[in-house]
Amino acid sequence: MPRYFLELAYKGTNYSGFQVQQNSITIQSELEKALNTFFKQPISLTGSSRTDAGVHALQNYFHFDTHISIEEKQLYNINAILPPDIVVKAIFPVPDTAHCRFDAISREYKYFIYNQKSPFLNDRAWFYPYKLDKLQLDLAAKTLIGTMDFTSFSKKNTQVNNFICIIHKSEWLLEGDCLIYNVQGNRFLRGMVRGLVGTMVRVARGIITVQEFEEIIHAKNAAKADFTTPAHGLFLAAVNYPKDLLNKAS
Amino acid sequence: MPRYFLELAYKGTNYSGFQVQQNSITIQSELEKALNTFFKQPISLTGSSRTDAGVHALQNYFHFDTHISIEEKQLYNINAILPPDIVVKAIFPVPDTAHCRFDAISREYKYFIYNQKSPFLNDRAWFYPYKLDKLQLDLAAKTLIGTMDFTSFSKKNTQVNNFICIIHKSEWLLEGDCLIYNVQGNRFLRGMVRGLVGTMVRVARGIITVQEFEEIIHAKNAAKADFTTPAHGLFLAAVNYPKDLLNKAS
Repeated sequence: MPRYFLELAYKGTNYSGFQVQQNSITIQSELEKALNTFFKQPISLTGSSRTDAGVHALQNYFHFDTHISIEEKQLYNINAILPPDIVVKAIFPVPDTAHCRFDAISREYKYFIYNQKSPFLNDRAWFYPYKLDKLQLDLAAKTLIGTMDFTSFSKKNTQVNNFICIIHKSEWLLEGDCLIYNVQGNRFLRGMVRGLVGTMVRVARGIITVQEFEEIIHAKNAAKADFTTPAHGLFLAAVNYPKDLLNKAS
Repeated sequence: MPRYFLELAYKGTNYSGFQVQQNSITIQSELEKALNTFFKQPISLTGSSRTDAGVHALQNYFHFDTHISIEEKQLYNINAILPPDIVVKAIFPVPDTAHCRFDAISREYKYFIYNQKSPFLNDRAWFYPYKLDKLQLDLAAKTLIGTMDFTSFSKKNTQVNNFICIIHKSEWLLEGDCLIYNVQGNRFLRGMVRGLVGTMVRVARGIITVQEFEEIIHAKNAAKADFTTPAHGLFLAAVNYPKDLLNKAS
């Protein structure tokens, strides 16, 4: 049966996460409801990258199979059925064997922090009213680039048994009123970005040194990281696939 | 008694407007509550520029009188009492005779429109999924500059009897995913910016011509304008005072 990738963006504030759960409104449950209405038959979705309750996405993917042909201009109809905080950006055919989770080659996250109270940021960035040393953030972020065991930054109750991640990009940016942590890697563990941000922020406040931050990584002990960073500052910014898979014009 | 100007910004989504009203939560009622707590005595606020329910402000002002001295660093304490969507940006002494409403020399509004569904704009811009001709918007906006009778763009139930406004700036800008109408004038009538935007958008869709738009102005008849433009796209962007009044360092 022909397979399609569905690219979407969403504001996570009002959702109990990404994946279907009993008695919860999630991104997947809302999307399945809209697609079932649109296609007039049940559509089974496979998700690419889970996001926790309250986490946003500038880009995420699902795949699904259907014999019903779908044209780009029909996107408007699907978006009209969906709530205002979930948007389908593209639907395009892929090879029948393509898998939106397993074929992803990297993912990118952004975490937004602001430290002057603003009426327009509180649902999309973390209000953290302390002086942060950007140079210390830069130094801490740089230590993460490469291949490393991130056990210390993985929340418990995770089903994985391999904690090695390859980090390609790890940097702090100043944009408008926000400090943004931008990280790209081949994979991420549960709670990893929020744990990294929460712990780097302690470096930036002078509570721990960059060297102590590195020691936390090497300790392979999740009890040492700070996971209290709230969900609403986190965005899944991109999910990347091999170029030939994303030949949307096909 | 010493007089102070209080500069603030707010997201209007959750408020029934600016001014105190019985049985409604407004910007003024929340601010008075916070200041009463902070000063431990009743503070009476006079507002500069009313905004309708749901309208936001990047800048607005109140003034109040008090014998209690207040330092810049105490702003943090006031902001900590206020809800996250109301922010006090400055409090500074002014001459005892200064009046935040009557001394304002101009005000500036911005109206945000987006026409591709976005999960992050729906509370701060108007989703209007039609093709808009920017050139026509520019031409329509240009006709508004100068001194004119804006009876056609004033909502009824208004208490004013003079509808003449001097418009210094009237332009459309493209910024990111938004089309923004930016207008500055000596004064604005009730519903005026939303009426102007709603009617210019009809020009941009080719429903009426720029000449017909001008005829609506000259008709001095509010029945001809389109006031259906929603509140949540509108921002009071600035309230301007004579320079010597805003000598915040004094």
